[in-house]
Amino acid sequence: MNASISNNRPAATGHSSYAPYIKARWGLKNHWFPALFSEELKEGEFDATTLCGEPILLRREAGQVHALEDRCCHRGVPLSKKPYCFKEGTVTCWYHGYTYGLGDGELKTIIGSPDDPLIGNASIKTYPVTEAAGMIFVFVGDADFGEPPPLSHDLPPQLRAAGEDHYCAHLLNPNTTVRGIRRQGAANWRLASENGFDPGHVLVHQDSPWVYAQDWALPLGFRPVTEHATTTFVENNAPRGILNEYVPGADGVAHYEPVMHNEMLDVSAFGGQNVPAGLRTSMWLPGVLLVENAPYPGMSMYEMYVPIDDQTYQYWELIACETPTPEDETAFVDQYENYLKKAMFNDFNDQDLVARDAMQPFYAQDAGWSAEQLCSLDAVIIGWRKLVAGYARGIQSPPKELSRPRKSRTL
Amino acid sequence: MNASISNNRPAATGHSSYAPYIKARWGLKNHWFPALFSEELKEGEFDATTLCGEPILLRREAGQVHALEDRCCHRGVPLSKKPYCFKEGTVTCWYHGYTYGLGDGELKTIIGSPDDPLIGNASIKTYPVTEAAGMIFVFVGDADFGEPPPLSHDLPPQLRAAGEDHYCAHLLNPNTTVRGIRRQGAANWRLASENGFDPGHVLVHQDSPWVYAQDWALPLGFRPVTEHATTTFVENNAPRGILNEYVPGADGVAHYEPVMHNEMLDVSAFGGQNVPAGLRTSMWLPGVLLVENAPYPGMSMYEMYVPIDDQTYQYWELIACETPTPEDETAFVDQYENYLKKAMFNDFNDQDLVARDAMQPFYAQDAGWSAEQLCSLDAVIIGWRKLVAGYARGIQSPPKELSRPRKSRTL
Amino acid sequence: MNASISNNRPAATGHSSYAPYIKARWGLKNHWFPALFSEELKEGEFDATTLCGEPILLRREAGQVHALEDRCCHRGVPLSKKPYCFKEGTVTCWYHGYTYGLGDGELKTIIGSPDDPLIGNASIKTYPVTEAAGMIFVFVGDADFGEPPPLSHDLPPQLRAAGEDHYCAHLLNPNTTVRGIRRQGAANWRLASENGFDPGHVLVHQDSPWVYAQDWALPLGFRPVTEHATTTFVENNAPRGILNEYVPGADGVAHYEPVMHNEMLDVSAFGGQNVPAGLRTSMWLPGVLLVENAPYPGMSMYEMYVPIDDQTYQYWELIACETPTPEDETAFVDQYENYLKKAMFNDFNDQDLVARDAMQPFYAQDAGWSAEQLCSLDAVIIGWRKLVAGYARGIQSPPKELSRPRKSRTL
Repeated sequence: MNASISNNRPAATGHSSYAPYIKARWGLKNHWFPALFSEELKEGEFDATTLCGEPILLRREAGQVHALEDRCCHRGVPLSKKPYCFKEGTVTCWYHGYTYGLGDGELKTIIGSPDDPLIGNASIKTYPVTEAAGMIFVFVGDADFGEPPPLSHDLPPQLRAAGEDHYCAHLLNPNTTVRGIRRQGAANWRLASENGFDPGHVLVHQDSPWVYAQDWALPLGFRPVTEHATTTFVENNAPRGILNEYVPGADGVAHYEPVMHNEMLDVSAFGGQNVPAGLRTSMWLPGVLLVENAPYPGMSMYEMYVPIDDQTYQYWELIACETPTPEDETAFVDQYENYLKKAMFNDFNDQDLVARDAMQPFYAQDAGWSAEQLCSLDAVIIGWRKLVAGYARGIQSPPKELSRPRKSRTL
Repeated sequence: MNASISNNRPAATGHSSYAPYIKARWGLKNHWFPALFSEELKEGEFDATTLCGEPILLRREAGQVHALEDRCCHRGVPLSKKPYCFKEGTVTCWYHGYTYGLGDGELKTIIGSPDDPLIGNASIKTYPVTEAAGMIFVFVGDADFGEPPPLSHDLPPQLRAAGEDHYCAHLLNPNTTVRGIRRQGAANWRLASENGFDPGHVLVHQDSPWVYAQDWALPLGFRPVTEHATTTFVENNAPRGILNEYVPGADGVAHYEPVMHNEMLDVSAFGGQNVPAGLRTSMWLPGVLLVENAPYPGMSMYEMYVPIDDQTYQYWELIACETPTPEDETAFVDQYENYLKKAMFNDFNDQDLVARDAMQPFYAQDAGWSAEQLCSLDAVIIGWRKLVAGYARGIQSPPKELSRPRKSRTL
Repeated sequence: MNASISNNRPAATGHSSYAPYIKARWGLKNHWFPALFSEELKEGEFDATTLCGEPILLRREAGQVHALEDRCCHRGVPLSKKPYCFKEGTVTCWYHGYTYGLGDGELKTIIGSPDDPLIGNASIKTYPVTEAAGMIFVFVGDADFGEPPPLSHDLPPQLRAAGEDHYCAHLLNPNTTVRGIRRQGAANWRLASENGFDPGHVLVHQDSPWVYAQDWALPLGFRPVTEHATTTFVENNAPRGILNEYVPGADGVAHYEPVMHNEMLDVSAFGGQNVPAGLRTSMWLPGVLLVENAPYPGMSMYEMYVPIDDQTYQYWELIACETPTPEDETAFVDQYENYLKKAMFNDFNDQDLVARDAMQPFYAQDAGWSAEQLCSLDAVIIGWRKLVAGYARGIQSPPKELSRPRKSRTL
């Protein structure tokens, strides 16, 4: 993995140094976002979701998933309210029978006005779709963006080669089983992503039964001690992200030091004896967290913070495990269903969910961005903001109730 | 019936050609609107409603209904919260005893300050009231409008003379029984009225048990085939409206052709064998639908879309039937209560109610008016919009919390 | 008691004559407000409230109550969500461990970053606190206001000396027992305070079981008959308020005349034979009502209308009784718990609560202030508005999500 390494304490940290981030209330456009788990959309079914403020209709036909604007161009009603398919490759609006091609969104016919001059002269937006790791991904972007990049550019990369120390599963690898859930959080997606890999929020988890069960030595915080505590990935045509080097690198050098005692408060680190092996966090555009070697060595946890609107996000929580044999898969799925799902998502991650929501009022009207008082634990968050500001493919605009200008005509 | 016949495909169809319609979020002022069913307000009772954003108190005294602004001029509380009548012809506010004349809205006394200089120098708005067809109608208009027009100008006219083909009941005729319901819809009144007589929305009703029970041949749509498919009524001092000539006129010429097949989708008309006889729709200012010969030949259905505020309307649904004898009346009421009420209102009309609500978000901020992509089925809707723009007696302003300027004074 | 007596019918009564009052949506700053009953915050406990739009954390330590801004300066979360005390005299945020001094609000440490340069360079607002009469009072004011005035300046004074006619209990006196409740009302605090001592709202109470039980002669209203019907107190360094002289003064002269009949309506005063002895109402900055000799001679009722936000107030209802002996106290508490609490608060005062809420829509967007039509019964309300406009220590600004500018720094 090549990485452009950046300084973990940028010279400028004021919010003017990452102004586009402040504007990104509705998310980052021209990126891939997860829309549904694949198993949520069976052959011949329709479903709908909202990504970055855009209502999207999904349809699986002959195995392939199509995504279209979920809004009829005629009178604006959601197609998903009662979508009809009278003919393969089309979807017909339940209200006046406007019928669109699944592939191009063009108006193919109007059921009660087959010779209408509007036919062929109107359309709704379509979205590139791909499926991977049991999820349906949709590319939310400009109509004139051109060919979308590969999905892998919008997911964390494989950071260590197989066989390397602390190698762990990757959700795009073959023979990898991925399990997870999705649910909504009541905060802006940026607050969710910042909490995701925040090295200073350990206190939130200090009474976690999961942490207790691991008998982990949970420090009070992590202090960056070298210039290389964080690494930024900014190459073109590759995932762009920022990595917390919690564990020593190949050279054995530790870049973070755990804080075990606070003298002023006379408080010492909570917890037990064990040190998590190879656990490391990184955050990737357009808002994907990777936790390596979690919940157990060899596994990977992913979290995705997908804007629904400017104050709600879809929270995806995933665990990936390499399962070369069917027995491995059965064992992992069993462990996930009976223990990890509850322990990681409904115990540990619930504590984060609550914390994110608690920040929302302070940032709701954007006052928080200039009023917040960050500390040195937040260096990596500043790094993330600058990464987004500099390397996102675009900043999503608020919905105007229409995702693109229409061809205009008169009756 | 004299009618000024207009072209059913107006040259200009852009929304600038009916700009006042776009501004009419709060309804059309200087028109009659139904407020309550007569039986909802018994002798000596008070009740309240909201018409076009104006809160209105209703009182029946000695048989006559009075309508006043439902807001005390003193501190703005609703009189209807606990209206007192200490003396015939007056209503007293429950809070400080401001007492108004039912007829003129003038402040007649203050219960605890009988010599107050404000008495005779303050007032609340009053509204003309009339009762007909079992309903209380209120004229919502400017204080300086002058004598209101007769109610009949704000209702559909009798379109065919008695004895003529397809003659059907009219709600203002003697020996006519009217039954119906009212309920709220969550859309702007304009979306409701446009759906009311939309010739293109047949698909919404294709799975209606009522249609199935009639064994009707329900076409996919109706295509206008002559210049006279719609007729516009724009005379002064008469009802103003627009009529869909679904059935051939006296000359036997058909102006609409049913669309029975869509080749591209390979879909044919739904339903059975029967053709509705004399069924025709028309829409009248300030938002009243007439469906002739529905639900059965000889009957008439009326719908009224009365603005409550700019995103809610009162939906009135009525059936009128001529009942020359008491036995006729008993038979119709029995049929209505046991069958028609459920079949027409809670089956067929429910499908329209849902469709109207589905349009609301697209038009809520007015974006829909310029973004919609109308087709040839919508010609009559354009016609309706232009009729409103050109012939409504006024466009209601948003409430300023006061319906007219007060006489000002100092203590 | 020295009083600067003012004319009860001010020359100018238009709302421009008390413009600062119209701006005081969020309350009056630089005043004392009740936050909690003392018994609601036990030793070692935290609690929270909102006063004039400011979120406030309360903490009792070694008996003393401390009040701080309930919002961490780091990411804006409420400390009260899960406040930690790791060390006496401090409170630690549950999210990232920012730790503040209870006394000065200064950032003392960050649990996981003990050497952080932000420590000592950031703070949250603190509030002066005092306890009296079983209540915790907080001074909501400007950071640079200086030493707050004594609490007694923001409460009604003792209006009559002991031994004088109609002397009654005062909540700050020794050997006085105070009991009461607090609850929320859905109106702006100004509407609540105006209703509190409004001489014209008798009608609201005409069907009160409490009034009936007293067999009181409840007039229709009270007409001011001398120049001295109201007295205004405007001295510096003393309570500022306005008094309705319902009962004759020491000279035996009556300044108000009860209105017993309204001829136009042919309505006479409601109720029985008894005349309340010494009952008098007055209203004091920042919104405290005193009802002398209520509910019984010798007792005092207090009501406080404390802004939570601009459309909600905390409604405090209190009864004070002198109880020189433990037996007196037991008897009063018994009477309060078994009768007065229900009769005064949940009967009589409920009628006022409803009336205040009913005014709110008319004044919500400030339209009511210029549209209202006041009458002569409202002279004392105009007096109160001018008193607030002229003598309040300040007008609270709307929350900007931050109660004071922060010291700024870069990482």
